[in-house]
Amino acid sequence: MENNTSERAVTLKDLARELGIHPSTVSRVLHSDPASARGAASEATAQRIRDLAAEVGYSPDPQATSLRTRRTRLLGVVVPRLSDLVLAIMYEGIEDAAARVGYSAFVTNSRDDEREQRRKVEMMLARRVDGLIIGDSHLDGDVLPDLRRRAVPFVLMNRRHPGFPSATCDDIRGGELVAEHLWDKGHQQVAVIAGEPYASTAVDRTSAFVERWRELGGDIAEDSIVWSRFDTQGGREAAEKILASGKAPTAVFAVNDFAAIGAMGALRAHGLTVGRDCAVVGYNDTSLAAELPIPLSSVRSPMAEIGRNAVRMLQGVLRGEDVESVRLEPALQVRESSA
Amino acid sequence: MENNTSERAVTLKDLARELGIHPSTVSRVLHSDPASARGAASEATAQRIRDLAAEVGYSPDPQATSLRTRRTRLLGVVVPRLSDLVLAIMYEGIEDAAARVGYSAFVTNSRDDEREQRRKVEMMLARRVDGLIIGDSHLDGDVLPDLRRRAVPFVLMNRRHPGFPSATCDDIRGGELVAEHLWDKGHQQVAVIAGEPYASTAVDRTSAFVERWRELGGDIAEDSIVWSRFDTQGGREAAEKILASGKAPTAVFAVNDFAAIGAMGALRAHGLTVGRDCAVVGYNDTSLAAELPIPLSSVRSPMAEIGRNAVRMLQGVLRGEDVESVRLEPALQVRESSA
Repeated sequence: MENNTSERAVTLKDLARELGIHPSTVSRVLHSDPASARGAASEATAQRIRDLAAEVGYSPDPQATSLRTRRTRLLGVVVPRLSDLVLAIMYEGIEDAAARVGYSAFVTNSRDDEREQRRKVEMMLARRVDGLIIGDSHLDGDVLPDLRRRAVPFVLMNRRHPGFPSATCDDIRGGELVAEHLWDKGHQQVAVIAGEPYASTAVDRTSAFVERWRELGGDIAEDSIVWSRFDTQGGREAAEKILASGKAPTAVFAVNDFAAIGAMGALRAHGLTVGRDCAVVGYNDTSLAAELPIPLSSVRSPMAEIGRNAVRMLQGVLRGEDVESVRLEPALQVRESSA
Repeated sequence: MENNTSERAVTLKDLARELGIHPSTVSRVLHSDPASARGAASEATAQRIRDLAAEVGYSPDPQATSLRTRRTRLLGVVVPRLSDLVLAIMYEGIEDAAARVGYSAFVTNSRDDEREQRRKVEMMLARRVDGLIIGDSHLDGDVLPDLRRRAVPFVLMNRRHPGFPSATCDDIRGGELVAEHLWDKGHQQVAVIAGEPYASTAVDRTSAFVERWRELGGDIAEDSIVWSRFDTQGGREAAEKILASGKAPTAVFAVNDFAAIGAMGALRAHGLTVGRDCAVVGYNDTSLAAELPIPLSSVRSPMAEIGRNAVRMLQGVLRGEDVESVRLEPALQVRESSA
């Protein structure tokens, strides 16, 4: 029956049929307060009903949802890849905050593949999570509307999506900060290692940088904006493309620290010294940035705080509240790579 | 009832009592082949029995275990922290291999805290995983004997523990490779950033380095071996200690790349140039090492392969086989930091 959940919302009638129990009993167990729920059926029967409802991801109204909450106290988290330190740190923030409210959390990778996102979400619902924190939403995806239709409690983290509550860094402001910094340093020829075009983090940081750069009077060619994976290898490849295009930039903004480190490697391979021949600025200010042999300028994003906020917001959703999105303030850390 | 599982193994009688079903019925449902199990009770009753057995982590003999396997096809993974890229990459190997055999996996952090390890293991058993992959075992811990007593199917990954099957890098060989390399380069004054003393990775890499170093005729003072966290900050602090001790080393071996990067930061802060004034060698050869402004020599450990082996081994355990530990071969990548 698990698979039905990916096709359509499971109804009370489905549960009743599957269990061979009258729908009104199933309804009283799932929808009324604990006291009258106890009156509706033996504890064993009530448990069978709640088990199956959880197993198939049956999510009725907020009251019933919060009943489930008191029962499993487990949060499921889906991220693109935990090998992106940024998501691993956000997840540590989630575990912190979850533990403080008596919840456990677990996490799984979707690799930014939409089929895999669906598979992992269904796996977590079948594992009876009370709610989901989704860190891999795609601007062009349709996973989220489907979850909302099924009344699955969830919030977004790391990446925003219009119409859904999310905890993120203010990536627009972050992109602007980098543009202002490089402009003040007198750079003319800049390039952007932009990340994945389906991720709001990449789109917001890049578009805000470009817009602010042009407002300031700067010019940036389209072929100086290279979309890329968020990891070291992706940054390396993007920087190679930029350098192959002929006009070497005097500054590169990479929307992720790991991509920035990959770009540092490419510049080095071309005999350019980062900070002297070409400035590099990353994003997230991971623990590595300050310790690199050439310390990396980076936009500090409060990663763990974003994770903690996602848990707080999900608690609200589980209580049936309307929760507001949160945009946390970034701060640019200037270091030798762009000083 | 969940909590009982941390005190003692749950018996068939416990299940029968809890369910109000005769023990022989519970036994036939859990212990006989699917066909006769179906004969033993209605599907709803059989489901209640299997649900509770999974809920309380009841793990009888291998046959019954493999029955459960065919049912949930979920692997639980416990690691110290996913913000250690090494564990995140091992987990990607696990997801690869698990998907190929039709399994899903999820992972959670224990932060190397034994109480947290127990909490997370129980959470995963209550979430009905078929088996566990444990990446955070402590040489001095007693979590593993307890799991074996309860007949929970599990294997170790990343860290070994005497008497339990594990998939790891050959960390003894890895430590020796670094000693031989630094000796060949003519270093005399070496220091080790050793990691956490409860982790076999730290102990094996460090002790093998020191033993091989002394075999080669080298000398190393006890206060040149500094135990530390595995992360950048831990490496930075350990290197500060080493430098504060007066006699500056000509080479530093850090048992983790992130710790090595932290050491690079400390050396730099003391006006020393890595590779010229002091050699640095890391461990794991993460994707960053080759791209750093001063590329980092590092012992390549086949991280994803270790994760894939752990899944293969756990499949064997779930089939009731005795599985052998696997030690994968390391290889030293020499780069500018120690050339």
